[in-house]
Amino acid sequence: MDLHTISVFSTVEFSGVAAGALAGALEARRNQTYQYDAIGVLGLAIITALGGGITRDVLIQKGPPLAFLDVRYLMVALGAGLVALLFGSIARPSILKLVWFADAASLGLFSVAGVSRALNAGLPILAALILGLITAVGGGSLRDVLMGRTPRVFERGEPYTIAALLAVLVFLAAESLGCDRTISTTVGALAGLVLKLLSARFQWKTPAVGFRVE
Amino acid sequence: MDLHTISVFSTVEFSGVAAGALAGALEARRNQTYQYDAIGVLGLAIITALGGGITRDVLIQKGPPLAFLDVRYLMVALGAGLVALLFGSIARPSILKLVWFADAASLGLFSVAGVSRALNAGLPILAALILGLITAVGGGSLRDVLMGRTPRVFERGEPYTIAALLAVLVFLAAESLGCDRTISTTVGALAGLVLKLLSARFQWKTPAVGFRVE
Amino acid sequence: MDLHTISVFSTVEFSGVAAGALAGALEARRNQTYQYDAIGVLGLAIITALGGGITRDVLIQKGPPLAFLDVRYLMVALGAGLVALLFGSIARPSILKLVWFADAASLGLFSVAGVSRALNAGLPILAALILGLITAVGGGSLRDVLMGRTPRVFERGEPYTIAALLAVLVFLAAESLGCDRTISTTVGALAGLVLKLLSARFQWKTPAVGFRVE
Repeated sequence: MDLHTISVFSTVEFSGVAAGALAGALEARRNQTYQYDAIGVLGLAIITALGGGITRDVLIQKGPPLAFLDVRYLMVALGAGLVALLFGSIARPSILKLVWFADAASLGLFSVAGVSRALNAGLPILAALILGLITAVGGGSLRDVLMGRTPRVFERGEPYTIAALLAVLVFLAAESLGCDRTISTTVGALAGLVLKLLSARFQWKTPAVGFRVE
Repeated sequence: MDLHTISVFSTVEFSGVAAGALAGALEARRNQTYQYDAIGVLGLAIITALGGGITRDVLIQKGPPLAFLDVRYLMVALGAGLVALLFGSIARPSILKLVWFADAASLGLFSVAGVSRALNAGLPILAALILGLITAVGGGSLRDVLMGRTPRVFERGEPYTIAALLAVLVFLAAESLGCDRTISTTVGALAGLVLKLLSARFQWKTPAVGFRVE
Repeated sequence: MDLHTISVFSTVEFSGVAAGALAGALEARRNQTYQYDAIGVLGLAIITALGGGITRDVLIQKGPPLAFLDVRYLMVALGAGLVALLFGSIARPSILKLVWFADAASLGLFSVAGVSRALNAGLPILAALILGLITAVGGGSLRDVLMGRTPRVFERGEPYTIAALLAVLVFLAAESLGCDRTISTTVGALAGLVLKLLSARFQWKTPAVGFRVE
């Protein structure tokens, strides 16, 4: 891989970690049901930012989670959580929009990185695909469950998991066409971002699946 | 082991996986609190079907979960989830009864398989027993928690975990009497099924454990 | 390490496991939302007592959790759970106070033990610190989530996690000053206990972190 490309990936990845932590901390501060203290806000920030990758690594079982081995992950998540703790009460809409964009930009990259890691560990494609989705949506889902509610990605609304799934499918298609992994990763991650942007622009929503006993 | 017996086990096991996925998907569709989309229904189907075995394998830590290594597990769970997604709105009582029976038939087998796997990994009997119960009831419990409620197996009502416990105890008793593992597995799994059938027939319920400060 | 000191540690540790199990079981019996049966009370007792250490070991990934390998952990947790099941309905305030004290005394020791184990596994200090906190507060948090609510340690109120954090910081400071591990462990664990006692005596509470869109 070209070093420059890798550092682009790193920038997007750590922006995504920071965005996850900021989003998690703000979610905790805004919660109506529970009144979180500083430990709660920081804890939920770290879990939102790193929970997906940690869950993936625990499931792959090739040693401790990357987020524990490479201390930059915890430092970025903790730093962003502290920022949200100190300045979160004056969060302006423009900042929330920035957080949304960094999260959207990293969604596809997280999924693709999760798939790569699972494939490198020798897992079959279907398992790798699911581990890619867990990497992308696991942190926010853990936060939701720790806040006493169902994961938002399971509910009707924004096609969040579908954007992650598209990123994974585009990545796997590019890989199977023999593309360089840098290319596959880039097009996969971009596909996820584009779907997120389009769905926000045109208000695409997934429908609820109902039930009716005959 | 006799090959025929093993394929009987496989049939029961994969029927159980399918039943778990169907039950999880229908539970998600019927939920009153949250409105799940297709991703939610499929996600909850897979977690219900495979969550117990995955939790067991993560706790045993001898490599990635069986459900990720052997792709048939994910395919059966995903297939059953898709069936429930496409046809679940017209679920007839007779089909729900079939799902109930496949789940009951696999309950004991799952517990016994979990115990075997834990004993093979060198864990002490008490730990193996608990891992057997986790294999049997962990998937449904994870689904319950992801739906924002306590695991149903912890509440008063159907003696679900007790049936799994009976299966494990009968299996361990047969093992300690020197029975062939095929025999031990069969009698253990059958014991669980018989208790499930009896408790459904006679409406046996576990009582609540109250509290009173003197 | 001096054998006597180690057996002091063991006594405190297993008292802490028993206190966790008793507290978890009583919490389950007193719950207003759900009506738990005996399986539920015992399950929640074991998870409260051992869930923190098990989570730590699953994250460190150096083999099965200590609580499964050394059968004394499960036996103490199960035994205490059974006591709470049989005699819990007549729990006197004096007994609840004893449980509170055993829990407070073990809080610091659990955190320090968690940090030691993570450092021994070669993890960086920041990750070890977080794993120490997870060891101390993870079991109660798992129980809270399994009861359908947010972890109490994330909410404003008793500075529980802060006492664990103080224990870890004092331990790390003593280690970096070149103290014997027995000494570091002792002063760390004592620091946690002292903060718990002081905060109970003077009703110290952590404040909620609010939110306000400008």
